Amino acid sequence: MPDTVDALVPFSPDRPKTRLSDTLDPEERRAFAEAMLSDVLAALGGAGFEPRLLTTEPTGRDVPETVDDRPLTEAVNAALDAHDAGPDSPLAVVMADLALATPRALARLRGTVGASGGDGAVAADGAGAADVAIAPGRGGGTNALLVRHPEFRVDYHGASYLDHLRVARDIGASVREVDSRRLATDIDERADLTEVLLAGDGAARDWLVDAGFGLDAGGGRVSVERLRK
Amino acid sequence: MPDTVDALVPFSPDRPKTRLSDTLDPEERRAFAEAMLSDVLAALGGAGFEPRLLTTEPTGRDVPETVDDRPLTEAVNAALDAHDAGPDSPLAVVMADLALATPRALARLRGTVGASGGDGAVAADGAGAADVAIAPGRGGGTNALLVRHPEFRVDYHGASYLDHLRVARDIGASVREVDSRRLATDIDERADLTEVLLAGDGAARDWLVDAGFGLDAGGGRVSVERLRK
Repeated sequence: MPDTVDALVPFSPDRPKTRLSDTLDPEERRAFAEAMLSDVLAALGGAGFEPRLLTTEPTGRDVPETVDDRPLTEAVNAALDAHDAGPDSPLAVVMADLALATPRALARLRGTVGASGGDGAVAADGAGAADVAIAPGRGGGTNALLVRHPEFRVDYHGASYLDHLRVARDIGASVREVDSRRLATDIDERADLTEVLLAGDGAARDWLVDAGFGLDAGGGRVSVERLRK
Repeated sequence: MPDTVDALVPFSPDRPKTRLSDTLDPEERRAFAEAMLSDVLAALGGAGFEPRLLTTEPTGRDVPETVDDRPLTEAVNAALDAHDAGPDSPLAVVMADLALATPRALARLRGTVGASGGDGAVAADGAGAADVAIAPGRGGGTNALLVRHPEFRVDYHGASYLDHLRVARDIGASVREVDSRRLATDIDERADLTEVLLAGDGAARDWLVDAGFGLDAGGGRVSVERLRK
């Protein structure tokens, strides 16, 4: 494993978080998406990754970026084609809306925490050496990947976690599951904002608080409420 | 840390999973809750825990049990009173509806995976030695606890994760966060069944499949559908 690992962060400044449109207006969604991206980039840096944006349009950020306006799956696969991932040249793909991500959680994606990563192994072989590490998201998504196999390609449609297990099996790649609540929590819907307020500690949480959001612990499971706008 | 660790599993056979009443009838909810309990007990055993049921009425299972029909918080605190938890006599409290729990995820609750548990530390001290380990659930709940401090008591109302951090601070107890998607996923609502079908591999998943449930990957996030009854 090299000292730093390249990490691709797909980002769509032009289509920010449409499933939050019942809660935030377009300008707010864009600002909130930017705040989450800042948190993810900071957490990646803290875990020894070198992040690179894969963005649908230029962002003006002080981070290396590739502009590619194709759909997510095609753009990521083009980057995998170009990278030629292997044990000495892994490539991570980490979603930009993982507002709870911490350096520690992302270090588990790298496999640099604990003797063998400390995670559930899909394949029975040594976890740290797996060809593909996957942090599944709620609803069957793939929130973060670490690819060390040159033939692995992504398919983000539908239950991508199951698809990625299948892809790995087809090419004979071993898989390690990264069992992390923080990496499993992508922020798509209003209910997800609760998680940011409960467990976030970065720019996204600050943005929500500044925008007037707070926790409503009135009944049963905690929810989010907007106290002012 | 002793070889085996006592684990209390609260269970209410008389009030099974009411938030699934839009999806399952009372008898089905009871059977599904029993299947999840079986999975949790098996996973605990696989992680070196000695489970004991804390149940509102006798279950007839071949597992040690304490019958206590008081509300959850009072019943668990009575058990903590009686146990007098400490570094050499820890007590775990693990919810009965963690249908994705695996021995590996629960070993992280014990702190026996990796050099220091491999988890995010709330306190900065050595993770394996924390007085209280907490696996938070979605919506601020506390899905699993490992208590090594005699004064720690629970409060399961509202955002119990935040309450438990506060309780620990008040008694000067160090806290370790167990960052696990599998332990964070308690099965309460219809949408949660998707997670069981995606990532479960025990009695609860089998029960759902036998009852006619399958995955619907039609649009966007995967959901659950009942194909037959």
